[in-house]
Amino acid sequence: MSRVRLLTPGPVELHPRAQLVLSGPQVHHRTAPAREAFQAVREDLKAAFGTEGEVLLLTGSGTAAMEALVGGLFSPGERVAVPVSGKFSERWAEIAGALGLDVVRGDFPWGQPLSPEEVLGLLDRNTRGVLLTHSETSTGVLNPLAAIAAAVRSVHPDLLVVADAVTSLFLAAFSLDAMGLDAAVAGSQKGLMLPPGLAFVALGPRALQRLRPYGYYLNLDRERKVQAKGESAFTPAINLVLAARAVLEVLLPGLEDQLQTKRGHLERLYRIGEGRGLRPVPSRDGVPVPMDFRTPATAAFYLPEGVGFEALRDAFLARGARIAGGQGALKGRTFRISLMGYFPPEAAEWAFGVFEEVLEELL
Amino acid sequence: MSRVRLLTPGPVELHPRAQLVLSGPQVHHRTAPAREAFQAVREDLKAAFGTEGEVLLLTGSGTAAMEALVGGLFSPGERVAVPVSGKFSERWAEIAGALGLDVVRGDFPWGQPLSPEEVLGLLDRNTRGVLLTHSETSTGVLNPLAAIAAAVRSVHPDLLVVADAVTSLFLAAFSLDAMGLDAAVAGSQKGLMLPPGLAFVALGPRALQRLRPYGYYLNLDRERKVQAKGESAFTPAINLVLAARAVLEVLLPGLEDQLQTKRGHLERLYRIGEGRGLRPVPSRDGVPVPMDFRTPATAAFYLPEGVGFEALRDAFLARGARIAGGQGALKGRTFRISLMGYFPPEAAEWAFGVFEEVLEELL
Repeated sequence: MSRVRLLTPGPVELHPRAQLVLSGPQVHHRTAPAREAFQAVREDLKAAFGTEGEVLLLTGSGTAAMEALVGGLFSPGERVAVPVSGKFSERWAEIAGALGLDVVRGDFPWGQPLSPEEVLGLLDRNTRGVLLTHSETSTGVLNPLAAIAAAVRSVHPDLLVVADAVTSLFLAAFSLDAMGLDAAVAGSQKGLMLPPGLAFVALGPRALQRLRPYGYYLNLDRERKVQAKGESAFTPAINLVLAARAVLEVLLPGLEDQLQTKRGHLERLYRIGEGRGLRPVPSRDGVPVPMDFRTPATAAFYLPEGVGFEALRDAFLARGARIAGGQGALKGRTFRISLMGYFPPEAAEWAFGVFEEVLEELL
Repeated sequence: MSRVRLLTPGPVELHPRAQLVLSGPQVHHRTAPAREAFQAVREDLKAAFGTEGEVLLLTGSGTAAMEALVGGLFSPGERVAVPVSGKFSERWAEIAGALGLDVVRGDFPWGQPLSPEEVLGLLDRNTRGVLLTHSETSTGVLNPLAAIAAAVRSVHPDLLVVADAVTSLFLAAFSLDAMGLDAAVAGSQKGLMLPPGLAFVALGPRALQRLRPYGYYLNLDRERKVQAKGESAFTPAINLVLAARAVLEVLLPGLEDQLQTKRGHLERLYRIGEGRGLRPVPSRDGVPVPMDFRTPATAAFYLPEGVGFEALRDAFLARGARIAGGQGALKGRTFRISLMGYFPPEAAEWAFGVFEEVLEELL
């Protein structure tokens, strides 16, 4: 199989430090070096999430972490609000529904950033929580979570504000405590540049207080007690934990630079695409929104007139690159191109060059 | 960190074909080659589990698969029986309890193989299922599942017989359909010689019929529909799926030889230990049970008089090998030594030599 570089918004090009660890021999998780790595990763992630609370590791996809959080913070019958404007915000609503919560779902246009007013309109005095999506990868939107959380807290101070940070952590500025959030989830196969299989749950002080037992495998209440000792209740994906440690060692001290670089990559992608007349998905009333409302995780464009996704995808593949199509309501109408993974300057230039070539060829 | 070989009953020494795949670049899961690998692994595992039904892949530990199965086959309030005689049979009871089932728990001596009569004694006409453990790694016992299942079915033909095959698949003879079982679980970090993080659920025809939605992330009813197309509902640990395919390609055609070899390794370990006067854990009324009732996954011995586990462990570590201690009720009283992972003849001879040297030194 010839090498295809991933310009997809997860899974992504692996960090070379991760690859090195993952090519090594198996390490046992019930040993001192494994426990140390486990704790170091939790501590580093606390810093990355920006919380005085705790971060727990789960073996599973980001969805596992989402369910663990909903199940651990809310009980069946309790009311939660979910503003839906993409595939991942829809997932919050599905999970909350599957777990028997009283879900107040608000549907908003896909591709349009949420406003504080739209979210406030879903809440009443019986609402116990609101489930938000920071970076909505399916549409390319970065929702203004700090403003939304501030508005929610000013009117409903006791309500828990929960966020999907799967594709914003390590890519956009994020701080659980400073943004007024109570809990958030993320996963290994995005900004951390690891393979999929490890998920993270960040719990701020208020969320920790309200945590209750849920199910068995996804029981954060139990994990919290066990992980305090550097263990996990069940065999963890220890190889990914060790790889996470190796990447965090270099990623965390340079995080500001990393965010700048990723933001620069995003601007370059949009400049190339918009320069060729492509229409960005993140927009309001047909007008593209400012860069602050576009997620650094991926650029998202409507397909150009007369060009199908398959033709576009194949033009990239012919050059050794893979892009992603639209999801959910946008399937068949959009495409997404991302430099979320490991892209040192030369690799990034190569990716921009491929994008330009493909547009040159097809438009 | 100097290289320490794992003589532990999971995680284990990796298969070199797995290591090769895992050192490669990231592959995207929503692509034709990934879908083909996903389906090939499911087909190969169907053969390994020995069922005409289906095998589903879950990203998580074996425990995730256990919960998915209990939640997918039984509803809160329904009666299930769990004979407990080790840490992993106890886990079945805990899961069933956490999910609100009516659990009839029978406690039997740890280290003693279950008899069909003991299991039958837990059942009545309202029992909907029985949760069994094939290889009880915590005690070294291999339970006679075929005999137990036959006895159960002859008296209670409609009851579902569910098995934990986490450390018996690829190590002891196993056939879901032929042994009269309805469903079973296994994981990647045992006989398949992969890192932890991928779990398998085998569903026989009767279990497939009774499958119902459960939760969200561990919902087998949904996975069944999605996996029929070579996808999974959520981002899978695709790197482990690809590694599984590489290992299964060589493991499955030589499975009979593999079982013989593992059985030979086990006999050799017990011969060395018993020759030095060590007492095997698998026993009945103080008398060691025949080899057929000892799991090929690990040899388990009581600690010799006057020798603590730490001293034994350190003597192995000084020679570059790691063993495991006792679990649960046997913690501090037993030790376990396993050649479950990848041990070609020279590596196996090395392991036997280390075991002999350590006993020579300490006894």
